[in-house]
Amino acid sequence: MQSTTRSPETVAHSLSTTQILERYREVRGWSARLTDPLTPEDTVVQSMPDVSPTKWHLAHTSWFFETFVLKAAGGYRPFNARFEYLFNSYYNAVGPQFSRPHRGLISRPTLAEVKAYRAYVDEHMERLLESGGAADLLSVVEIGLHHEQQHQELILTDIKHVLSCNPLFPVYRERREIPEGSAPGEMGWREFPEGLRTIGHEGEGFHFDNEGPRHRVFLQPFALATRLVTNGEYRAFVDDGGYTRPEHWLSDGWATVQSQGWERPFYWLEIEGAMHEFTLSGMRPLAPNEPVTHLSYFEADAYARWAGARLPREAEWETAVEGAAMIGNFVESEAYHPVPVKDSDDSHMRQLFGDVWEWTASAYDAYPGYAPAPGALGEYNGKFMCNQFVLRGGSCATSRTHIRRTYRNFFPPAARWQFSGLRLAKDAS
Amino acid sequence: MQSTTRSPETVAHSLSTTQILERYREVRGWSARLTDPLTPEDTVVQSMPDVSPTKWHLAHTSWFFETFVLKAAGGYRPFNARFEYLFNSYYNAVGPQFSRPHRGLISRPTLAEVKAYRAYVDEHMERLLESGGAADLLSVVEIGLHHEQQHQELILTDIKHVLSCNPLFPVYRERREIPEGSAPGEMGWREFPEGLRTIGHEGEGFHFDNEGPRHRVFLQPFALATRLVTNGEYRAFVDDGGYTRPEHWLSDGWATVQSQGWERPFYWLEIEGAMHEFTLSGMRPLAPNEPVTHLSYFEADAYARWAGARLPREAEWETAVEGAAMIGNFVESEAYHPVPVKDSDDSHMRQLFGDVWEWTASAYDAYPGYAPAPGALGEYNGKFMCNQFVLRGGSCATSRTHIRRTYRNFFPPAARWQFSGLRLAKDAS
Amino acid sequence: MQSTTRSPETVAHSLSTTQILERYREVRGWSARLTDPLTPEDTVVQSMPDVSPTKWHLAHTSWFFETFVLKAAGGYRPFNARFEYLFNSYYNAVGPQFSRPHRGLISRPTLAEVKAYRAYVDEHMERLLESGGAADLLSVVEIGLHHEQQHQELILTDIKHVLSCNPLFPVYRERREIPEGSAPGEMGWREFPEGLRTIGHEGEGFHFDNEGPRHRVFLQPFALATRLVTNGEYRAFVDDGGYTRPEHWLSDGWATVQSQGWERPFYWLEIEGAMHEFTLSGMRPLAPNEPVTHLSYFEADAYARWAGARLPREAEWETAVEGAAMIGNFVESEAYHPVPVKDSDDSHMRQLFGDVWEWTASAYDAYPGYAPAPGALGEYNGKFMCNQFVLRGGSCATSRTHIRRTYRNFFPPAARWQFSGLRLAKDAS
Amino acid sequence: MQSTTRSPETVAHSLSTTQILERYREVRGWSARLTDPLTPEDTVVQSMPDVSPTKWHLAHTSWFFETFVLKAAGGYRPFNARFEYLFNSYYNAVGPQFSRPHRGLISRPTLAEVKAYRAYVDEHMERLLESGGAADLLSVVEIGLHHEQQHQELILTDIKHVLSCNPLFPVYRERREIPEGSAPGEMGWREFPEGLRTIGHEGEGFHFDNEGPRHRVFLQPFALATRLVTNGEYRAFVDDGGYTRPEHWLSDGWATVQSQGWERPFYWLEIEGAMHEFTLSGMRPLAPNEPVTHLSYFEADAYARWAGARLPREAEWETAVEGAAMIGNFVESEAYHPVPVKDSDDSHMRQLFGDVWEWTASAYDAYPGYAPAPGALGEYNGKFMCNQFVLRGGSCATSRTHIRRTYRNFFPPAARWQFSGLRLAKDAS
Repeated sequence: MQSTTRSPETVAHSLSTTQILERYREVRGWSARLTDPLTPEDTVVQSMPDVSPTKWHLAHTSWFFETFVLKAAGGYRPFNARFEYLFNSYYNAVGPQFSRPHRGLISRPTLAEVKAYRAYVDEHMERLLESGGAADLLSVVEIGLHHEQQHQELILTDIKHVLSCNPLFPVYRERREIPEGSAPGEMGWREFPEGLRTIGHEGEGFHFDNEGPRHRVFLQPFALATRLVTNGEYRAFVDDGGYTRPEHWLSDGWATVQSQGWERPFYWLEIEGAMHEFTLSGMRPLAPNEPVTHLSYFEADAYARWAGARLPREAEWETAVEGAAMIGNFVESEAYHPVPVKDSDDSHMRQLFGDVWEWTASAYDAYPGYAPAPGALGEYNGKFMCNQFVLRGGSCATSRTHIRRTYRNFFPPAARWQFSGLRLAKDAS
Repeated sequence: MQSTTRSPETVAHSLSTTQILERYREVRGWSARLTDPLTPEDTVVQSMPDVSPTKWHLAHTSWFFETFVLKAAGGYRPFNARFEYLFNSYYNAVGPQFSRPHRGLISRPTLAEVKAYRAYVDEHMERLLESGGAADLLSVVEIGLHHEQQHQELILTDIKHVLSCNPLFPVYRERREIPEGSAPGEMGWREFPEGLRTIGHEGEGFHFDNEGPRHRVFLQPFALATRLVTNGEYRAFVDDGGYTRPEHWLSDGWATVQSQGWERPFYWLEIEGAMHEFTLSGMRPLAPNEPVTHLSYFEADAYARWAGARLPREAEWETAVEGAAMIGNFVESEAYHPVPVKDSDDSHMRQLFGDVWEWTASAYDAYPGYAPAPGALGEYNGKFMCNQFVLRGGSCATSRTHIRRTYRNFFPPAARWQFSGLRLAKDAS
Repeated sequence: MQSTTRSPETVAHSLSTTQILERYREVRGWSARLTDPLTPEDTVVQSMPDVSPTKWHLAHTSWFFETFVLKAAGGYRPFNARFEYLFNSYYNAVGPQFSRPHRGLISRPTLAEVKAYRAYVDEHMERLLESGGAADLLSVVEIGLHHEQQHQELILTDIKHVLSCNPLFPVYRERREIPEGSAPGEMGWREFPEGLRTIGHEGEGFHFDNEGPRHRVFLQPFALATRLVTNGEYRAFVDDGGYTRPEHWLSDGWATVQSQGWERPFYWLEIEGAMHEFTLSGMRPLAPNEPVTHLSYFEADAYARWAGARLPREAEWETAVEGAAMIGNFVESEAYHPVPVKDSDDSHMRQLFGDVWEWTASAYDAYPGYAPAPGALGEYNGKFMCNQFVLRGGSCATSRTHIRRTYRNFFPPAARWQFSGLRLAKDAS
Repeated sequence: MQSTTRSPETVAHSLSTTQILERYREVRGWSARLTDPLTPEDTVVQSMPDVSPTKWHLAHTSWFFETFVLKAAGGYRPFNARFEYLFNSYYNAVGPQFSRPHRGLISRPTLAEVKAYRAYVDEHMERLLESGGAADLLSVVEIGLHHEQQHQELILTDIKHVLSCNPLFPVYRERREIPEGSAPGEMGWREFPEGLRTIGHEGEGFHFDNEGPRHRVFLQPFALATRLVTNGEYRAFVDDGGYTRPEHWLSDGWATVQSQGWERPFYWLEIEGAMHEFTLSGMRPLAPNEPVTHLSYFEADAYARWAGARLPREAEWETAVEGAAMIGNFVESEAYHPVPVKDSDDSHMRQLFGDVWEWTASAYDAYPGYAPAPGALGEYNGKFMCNQFVLRGGSCATSRTHIRRTYRNFFPPAARWQFSGLRLAKDAS
């Protein structure tokens, strides 16, 4: 997901005005809470082109409501007319955009000014919602809230990248006590028979347009692992020379390993002979029972090949989670990091949601019959359907109220700064 | 296809020794014929990293037989021991390789020496085949011949790129007289119903492993255009500002248009107000009825969107060509360029084979149950399954004896130097 | 000057302890004053590799005193042991350094923490100086103060670059009222006869080692313009197509013009048809009578050629300023921008000091007999003597107490972000 | 020297028509002789942007006579009108130029066609000279011959670079037997007193405009080594960790060492534990008594610093060679490589001319009073006076009839592909 906004298939909204107002306060408040541990200086930095400054995220999500709700509703005077240009991400239909890789050069508006901007937008939004003046815009408000939740995940992954560049390794938030977990033992597998399945979103609830239309696919028999791959398992791959043997890697992956000098997962660092991992709670000794995270597609794919398995296809994954409870280690648990599997009973599927996004073997594409929504909001739903792979299930930085079984996240195969890991799959018979 | 060698699923060969010997002479002779119009100077140049010098193609294809057949059969003294390194393309299992982007720096061996190398290999190959000493290597010989045919196509597309860089616009071969054709009229469409289909290669004949296993897929109803898109039609897109409007393009495509300054297809050039096209027969005024060619995936996709259509999925294409005769404008016709559709009867599918490779909307991936062959030859069948799209049907540079209905060619979405064009598709109901 | 520290030829200091202590407070206080108008967010940004964040300048100048005085004097506990690495600029003899182009990624220590660091160092420095414990380190303290003054100039030029990247064009400080000046009329010239001259620093006063040894040079007859080139004059060059005609430019300069898309001086911007200039007081209409500034050597040289003149050699410049009063528009005047010449009497040399650094035609090199000082402090005096040109006279961002007639500043010929302009020269007879 | 043409200060020529005709045949014939060992394939390759293909050198030098003599004389029909564009190097006044870094993409005209072009130009030139029709162009012919001699040196250094990229390490010409020489012993020094000297060219003979005007300089006392630095001496620097210690290097030099991964001189290669050097006669064990060559300025400067010395200034060098015989190992000796000093008497200056160009510490600049010649021929004499250093004395690839005591060659400080070495200098008293 490229801090993408995707529009729903229909303008029908799924919540009442009161529910929306409550959700609005909740979601907007969560952005503030995520920003609390940060200094003004932290919120300026863009540590690579994929990263946006926290300050920018806070402003851009407000810009969204200002542009698509307040201006659309009429009778609104913008907080600052220049912000339309400054905080547009990539909506060509709205107008030109400030260059993305240069977001880190913009010291003004300051964090305090951005907070004032947020308060101004919130005040007008609340007034509008309370007055019932946004009746035909409620679906857009709902999108705006999901949009802000996407950026909340990016606030966390982006600031993690920023802080990791600092040799002082600052702590975002001290960690809650998390049980170390016990070694999860042999990988368990669950088999699924061949057959025609139906995937994709259906019904009234909110969803992005790339999740539909619901359609039939034919699946060969397959098996999925009943839990995620752990740090300890992944380390065996590293120790076996995984990053030095081309035979495990896709050709583009191997080229990336060499040109980028990859030797291990992104946030792993050897300090005085012991492997450590940088987390949002600072630098810690590597915890072997936690799910491995911050893998690129290339690394997940190479590990699976080394392990004699493969990555799941997205239709397999969606079939497998049918009926599964949507519980897991989401951002609301405030662990800000994946946690060991709690349940040693490997006869059922665990860790399907939260913890880490699971890379699938499926290139991100259009479902049969897909058509992007019209206008600026729907402008770009399909425009990222190239050179990206689908990830499923959400992560420890995803909100419980944001994820769905049909949710399709996507990133280019070399991306490593998200909470992305893997579950193994196999052909069955 | 990255001048890729792909291995068959099985070591069983499909031709008799005599047939193989005959084929060997035929294929090897064709490489020589393709090189005839070139000067020694032409065969040295590498005009971009994707292009290899003709001299390199001629040597590498011989290296293949030397490495995988003659050395494997034993009792063979190499022509030059250093060539193992110099003409290995990317087989890590064979050993290190000379840097690909530097192939154009290698003036020696000269063209004459490379020809002597070819003659030496041919002599030993013929002796081996005649003596029956390669009984268990016949399938490898067969691969070697298909491998050489792939490089024959690259010899043509690479030298076209080389000659196009020269402001003198040299002619590779004077053109045979080709009828201008009449304007093909409105696009015709053929509809296909929904249902379970079976695609992929089956049976004894030679095929690459990525064409299998044969398997079932479920298709929604769709329609395919009954002919290719023409220069005239594509020009309407250009004239409509196609290259200046982001709404037609994938995000990566639009970034490429801007960073590369694309304004029209790769070999189109406006000269004194008139649009021209560089061909292997030199610079010519643009012929409106010829199929448009040398499009990237990005351009084919943008055109389809502009035209209110989409690109076919590869399973749709393969379903549609079932039972179609494999006739078309192949390299054997020596036109070295796509030709106008001859048949104005748009009630049936035309131009399915030859002329231009047809971009599909399908990312290049593994068929369910796919497993790469073992050893150096099979080392890399799957390693390109990332960030590439499938093309189907062969081109005017493809040999008639090389193409299959199940043949899966693939290139990255920005590649333009192949004979690649498009056929439109639509959802049906 | 690459935020360079240069050491004196001798360890003899030129001031008494009391004077040094007074100077210490004065200089350190000025850094604080320069930072006053900035928000914490402003002090983080590194807008290009040549620029350092304000926060870094404030810390690095304190690091200098900590490293070369407090640690050398002994009995000192560092504020934070990690700062040795983090705020070392390029002293290999001290140890490894944090990567220069990544200084903008470091949000911590925050501005408040850096200020605490400064206060801690100041407290220890004052205690040390008052106790007389630094008797043998006084010359190093003196260097440290000149070092800090160099960084004060960079604080201004760097933050100007940072703010200029922001489309809101923030104001650093509102401008004092500055008289517009009258058009300065025809350029006046002063001639100097040929002969043996002596240049370079001599005597007890503080100076950098590259200013000596004092030595003889033979000069041909020459003439220098009696004032700087103005915006109005430079604009005539722009309007005459100066940036589109290769014949005015050095070969490297023309390549830079084309690759960088230069069309006018760095901070000039055409807004709604009127030429503007970005200043530390925000965006203003271009003032024709002010000296042109932020020119690269390439631009100064091209202008001089276009004007039928040339740039002065540094020995010519130094000869010409002999005996001239060291008055001018320095940073103490707090104009933060060059001002029009006040005096219309062109029979004498004006604007020799302050306003803008004057590019000379002299490559930065070693004077005959030059030898760098030993140890870390002298480590690098000569190491920049390559691909740089000398500038003379100081600028509106230079401190009056920092400049000397023999002072040799230097920058690469493409550098534009300093207050650099030009005075014309000619051969005479 | 950037394959630069420089014009004389005066249009007066220094030779009679008959002498010029004789020289014309001699120089043009030498280009042919230099090309004899090369295959057509060799003459196409451009192994880096600084290198031009041999074929291009042969054509460009003919283009020079065609453009500036034959076309100027009138009544001439060009061999091929497109060549004006294709073989113009950088004369903006003549017209646009084919992109320099793409010269290696141009396979046509072939070597045979370029030879025909040369023959055509030669025929017309001889006819013109014999008819006396070029009376007012004789000085241009003379420039053209010196221009061709500059390119002859580049033909050798460029093809050496091309062949060195080939792992087969082809031989340009088998080496004549060259005595190994004996170890030259301690470095001898010759001292020169301080005083006013006069340098620069004077008189009727041919010279480039950058060699004048003749003018006075004041020199401090100095000493020059009486011979060049050898491979053996330079190797001691390498073995002492010279390429791993920043203290020896200029800042830009150290950055280059690190970014380019320099570990030893350009053509040195360790093969199975023994140091070798690639030469125009192929790969050879390093000869310790030969002068070290293919050093950049950065390396020469670092070596001198390590050795407790410095590089000579160009005025020092020119003063030192006054009256010295212009003998040495020039291209006419056909060694194509520097040779050991023959004479063990270190009481006099040896190896002043030929063998290797000697880097000086002097940035390439304009002599006082210098003015470039008017028109296309003089267009660019001064335009390279930036970021280059002067080299003196010619090399084993320079023609005896081309070099002068006042000759100023120049290259950027990182350039390594020329026959460039060093002589040490010191301050004296």
